[in-house]
Amino acid sequence: MSSSLLVIGTVAFDNLETPFGKADMVVGGAATYAGLSAANFTPHVGIVSVVGGDFPASFLQTFKERNINTEGLQIKQDEKSFFWAGKYHNDMNTRDTLDTQLNVLADFNPVVPESQRSAEYLLLGNLMPKLQMQVLDQMAVRPKLVVMDTMNFWMEIAMDDLKEVLKRVDVLTINDEEARLLSGEYSLVKAAKKILAMGPDYLIIKKGENGALLFRENKVFFAPALPLEDVFDPTGAGDSFAGGFIGYMAATDDISFENMRRAIIYGSAMASFTVEKFGTERLLSVTEEELEQRIQSFVNLMHVDMELA
Amino acid sequence: MSSSLLVIGTVAFDNLETPFGKADMVVGGAATYAGLSAANFTPHVGIVSVVGGDFPASFLQTFKERNINTEGLQIKQDEKSFFWAGKYHNDMNTRDTLDTQLNVLADFNPVVPESQRSAEYLLLGNLMPKLQMQVLDQMAVRPKLVVMDTMNFWMEIAMDDLKEVLKRVDVLTINDEEARLLSGEYSLVKAAKKILAMGPDYLIIKKGENGALLFRENKVFFAPALPLEDVFDPTGAGDSFAGGFIGYMAATDDISFENMRRAIIYGSAMASFTVEKFGTERLLSVTEEELEQRIQSFVNLMHVDMELA
Repeated sequence: MSSSLLVIGTVAFDNLETPFGKADMVVGGAATYAGLSAANFTPHVGIVSVVGGDFPASFLQTFKERNINTEGLQIKQDEKSFFWAGKYHNDMNTRDTLDTQLNVLADFNPVVPESQRSAEYLLLGNLMPKLQMQVLDQMAVRPKLVVMDTMNFWMEIAMDDLKEVLKRVDVLTINDEEARLLSGEYSLVKAAKKILAMGPDYLIIKKGENGALLFRENKVFFAPALPLEDVFDPTGAGDSFAGGFIGYMAATDDISFENMRRAIIYGSAMASFTVEKFGTERLLSVTEEELEQRIQSFVNLMHVDMELA
Repeated sequence: MSSSLLVIGTVAFDNLETPFGKADMVVGGAATYAGLSAANFTPHVGIVSVVGGDFPASFLQTFKERNINTEGLQIKQDEKSFFWAGKYHNDMNTRDTLDTQLNVLADFNPVVPESQRSAEYLLLGNLMPKLQMQVLDQMAVRPKLVVMDTMNFWMEIAMDDLKEVLKRVDVLTINDEEARLLSGEYSLVKAAKKILAMGPDYLIIKKGENGALLFRENKVFFAPALPLEDVFDPTGAGDSFAGGFIGYMAATDDISFENMRRAIIYGSAMASFTVEKFGTERLLSVTEEELEQRIQSFVNLMHVDMELA
């Protein structure tokens, strides 16, 4: 049986603009993408987050249909959900934030439901580091694996808090620019050494269309991104990656480096689906067969028989 | 026995400036890097190029010591060698050309020595497309494999000539920006489709520190670059890659897609050595044991056992 997984992060509305079009008030947020992604691997996912009274009941139903436990999702009837608006540049790797409205997030106090305080796998999705810490503190037992995702924004305004959380997690997932910001090193190899010295045993550096690197001590693994005809909307790709990664880890309940290599491929596969349509649309339609085919595409992409002596 | 390989391209002096320092009048050029790289795999490399009377006899000796046949290397005593000066930006992925002096290249007429007109493998290194065509025309028999390397500069001033050569080669190697320029497509997958329709059966898109993609019809292979602590000087990395690629192909004399996957890893390994020091210094000191170890590093970097059902 697969292990229990708790995911914290935002559940939000996004206004998205890409070279392919615009979409307004799309349900998004780190916990949404990560939770839905993880739910492809294990039926024991719980999310801890907060939304306002404006959040659609139909999407709560979507969570339920995916076996996602929303007991820890607070609903503040008189407030509005967290809102983000962003516009992607033509290269799809960079974006401008057009608007951020914290709303319910401004005074959010995450509460992990009693029944989920013994979750064996924990994803601290992108959120204020202080809130990530509060969730860690509420766990009754230290989870087998704690994965932390974060972003440059928190490095700029809450670096000290972020570093405190970092001491207590097993895996950190950030992108290449964030790795440089956190470490002060341009070389990703040097950056990884410094970041691993800050606490985590594993560091995953996400490079978008250029794949992802997994570092542990002197070991390193590289997983490519699947070359796609079009990246329609990159929003949530990183969260889908993190959710797929820890979802696979929880489902297989094996925290070895070898299994993490596999988990990164599964995370990359989930991210490759997410970017095919706006918001969570594609993520919600992924079938088991499609996932299997996509994993096979990754295997073909990476296959080489070096016939070493 | 390994097959014969002919390499054409520039042999030049470079002034190099990187964030790590400066070096003046360093021997470089596409044929230099590619030839020296290929010579690690096969003792049957010939180069076709041109230098002035200012070219150091000691470096001609270096070619000889590596079993590189310089019969096709014209020496114009009263002229000066091709000269290029460039400065790399901090990201090491972009550079400014500070100076270019064609000198002997201005009226270069490549002549393939009689003894090398039946070479089985041919690398048309980065050079004016018209000169690449002249060399192709001089071959007595169509080589088993023709690899063409080129750059954005020729796409800007000699696109028609370039497209004519493209019709007659098997493999094209260019970087991601050049693939976009040549195809008019941002997506590399779409770019690859268009470029493969222009003639070559195989397309290698080099992405520097982000690895390389090999496309053929509906197949694609991805090879990562080795994560390095420092990239000291990227000059010649692409040429070393191309030389290592075709050198391995010639040495193994197997032009299957499977073998090209391996050849790309060997090419990437050679490029990873080149960037460790200024100019050809590191490339010249690579031992068989070091190459073997580096290949093992690539295997470790890429290894994942997906245990598919």
